[in-house]
Amino acid sequence: MERVNDEIFMKEALRLAELRKGLTHPNPTVGAVIVKDGKIIGKGFHKKAGMPHAEREAINDAIKKGFNLEGSTMYVTLEPCCHYGRTPPCTEAIIDRRIKRVVIATVDPNPQVSGKGVEILKKHGIETVVGVLQDEARKLNEDFFVYIKEKRPFIHLKIAQSLDGKIATGTGSSKWITSEESRRYVHKLRRESTAIMVGTNTVLKDNPNLTVRYTETERQPLRVVLDKDLKIPEDYNVFNNEAKTVLFTSDIADRNKIKRLEDKGVQIVRLPLKNRRFDLNDILKNLYSLDVVHLFIEGGRDLITQFLKEKLFDRISVFIAPKIIGEDGISSFGKLGIDTVDKSINLHLEDIKRFGDDILLQLRP
Amino acid sequence: MERVNDEIFMKEALRLAELRKGLTHPNPTVGAVIVKDGKIIGKGFHKKAGMPHAEREAINDAIKKGFNLEGSTMYVTLEPCCHYGRTPPCTEAIIDRRIKRVVIATVDPNPQVSGKGVEILKKHGIETVVGVLQDEARKLNEDFFVYIKEKRPFIHLKIAQSLDGKIATGTGSSKWITSEESRRYVHKLRRESTAIMVGTNTVLKDNPNLTVRYTETERQPLRVVLDKDLKIPEDYNVFNNEAKTVLFTSDIADRNKIKRLEDKGVQIVRLPLKNRRFDLNDILKNLYSLDVVHLFIEGGRDLITQFLKEKLFDRISVFIAPKIIGEDGISSFGKLGIDTVDKSINLHLEDIKRFGDDILLQLRP
Repeated sequence: MERVNDEIFMKEALRLAELRKGLTHPNPTVGAVIVKDGKIIGKGFHKKAGMPHAEREAINDAIKKGFNLEGSTMYVTLEPCCHYGRTPPCTEAIIDRRIKRVVIATVDPNPQVSGKGVEILKKHGIETVVGVLQDEARKLNEDFFVYIKEKRPFIHLKIAQSLDGKIATGTGSSKWITSEESRRYVHKLRRESTAIMVGTNTVLKDNPNLTVRYTETERQPLRVVLDKDLKIPEDYNVFNNEAKTVLFTSDIADRNKIKRLEDKGVQIVRLPLKNRRFDLNDILKNLYSLDVVHLFIEGGRDLITQFLKEKLFDRISVFIAPKIIGEDGISSFGKLGIDTVDKSINLHLEDIKRFGDDILLQLRP
Repeated sequence: MERVNDEIFMKEALRLAELRKGLTHPNPTVGAVIVKDGKIIGKGFHKKAGMPHAEREAINDAIKKGFNLEGSTMYVTLEPCCHYGRTPPCTEAIIDRRIKRVVIATVDPNPQVSGKGVEILKKHGIETVVGVLQDEARKLNEDFFVYIKEKRPFIHLKIAQSLDGKIATGTGSSKWITSEESRRYVHKLRRESTAIMVGTNTVLKDNPNLTVRYTETERQPLRVVLDKDLKIPEDYNVFNNEAKTVLFTSDIADRNKIKRLEDKGVQIVRLPLKNRRFDLNDILKNLYSLDVVHLFIEGGRDLITQFLKEKLFDRISVFIAPKIIGEDGISSFGKLGIDTVDKSINLHLEDIKRFGDDILLQLRP
């Protein structure tokens, strides 16, 4: 029975965390509820980096409502922190308020602190339970977990193709393969990400804004543009002030143009080329240092193929429209040199969504 | 209230018809129930061509159970026939048994008899209602409706491809792109069809049996093989005695080989070629005269592309495996000469099924 109740309250904590998905980066999204005598007396979630953690929000909520927290149970979707960061440790607040029991969905992914919060709580005689709805909790912050463990952004590729795997006709016509409904949903995926990346040709061809529209948002993801030869004109939309932009270019790029772009507020990162290409690991290292937790890559085809070939991806979102373009169209991916079927890139199908006649497949390595 | 009851009983009649889907060709599948005082007193379905119609089966069932049919209501998924065919007209039996009311899901698709059964029943003072669950009833016999109205088989194309629209690697390796579960489901699709068609290269490459296996069946669909140059060796599986085979070849094909195949029981149809190809309309006309209601086309790619180009298809089943093969693989369809997206072949997505990590999309023109 206690287990059943634990799951019910943890679900509520997860629901609270879900509300801030994508908005707390580089922090994870976390929710907490406090229960006394079988009733929820406080709720909280982490609003964004720099703001109080979910545990403190829930404690403050209960106090504001006049409750005494002594003997209560806290449900929290991630292990409470035990170190001084931008905010004091949550374990301290839990101990101070004489919370009796703490139920945690999952421990901290950071191997250096993982389990330490639990340890401190136990040392102070607080009953702790770990692992309630653990899979759901890990899933919710899967991008953050990858970011912490791999020290690189979580990589999310997006493809929008015809039924027969074409992203354009042979003449390059690509507007629009997918439906308006599908294209609007892309903005929800953008909102969940810290940064949106595209290559030079995508910018030259479509002059995209790369901002979140058609859906509410409190902040715009960082725009990341790869342009080794600095070909993109300065008046293009990716350089407007609707969002911040980081531009990766080569170390031999035109200094004057760099200066002008910097004056417009664009952050420029110069990287050495290897075989006339960027080294993806250089880019990922830079984005990690820029606190990019979730990198959403929208194109072009060659860039996506490069990530695919180097097995650098954590999630692929493929929109499929029920259209047939034929062999003379442009394939979704470039050449991969796969000679037998058993050597093809195998993915796991996690979820299917439907948007009118289009479908969205969520795939994993 | 009567309407609600009508739908409940018609659902049961449709359920009965569904049991024989694909097994009654060239007849439609039909179910009937007879209701008296709010209770079902007789049930029946059409077993197969040459056997009694569903209406008579239901009447006989009620009589066998000792019921008097006077004043009862019959629910039938298709308009009762009013002409002497292989069996006497069902309208006669309904009138003879003094059934009071007949509820019909949909009228006969044949314009020459459509509505005539209803007319006769009305003339004899029987209350008739038409259109209860009409969409479901038409859907159930959609192949038969096309066959009757268009005087050609219902055309059903099958594709099994990777996520990126490839049916093989560049070297021709194609075993297996889809999962075993998907491949087993193909046998259910085969069972629903009257005939299974393939081109020469598919036979030469895979030496398929083209029979229904892994699922119960009472009969094997007709195998239809296109082989203009009579290239397929006589000992190949399509010529074994596990099912009947019709082979289309050109009028200049080797007479001796034709003779030997005929001796094995293969039916040979010689057709003139146009631009070194069969005229699909010639083939469809022949298959119509062979009572083929539902033609399931399993390949190869060029044959399917030809049907697609000539807009000769009623349904497409696309199995998609979550594998990526890349641009160097072989595309699901050949060249279609489509230069802008708005000219691509637009389909309607009717249904999605999932088989493990594979999906099956059911598409319509």
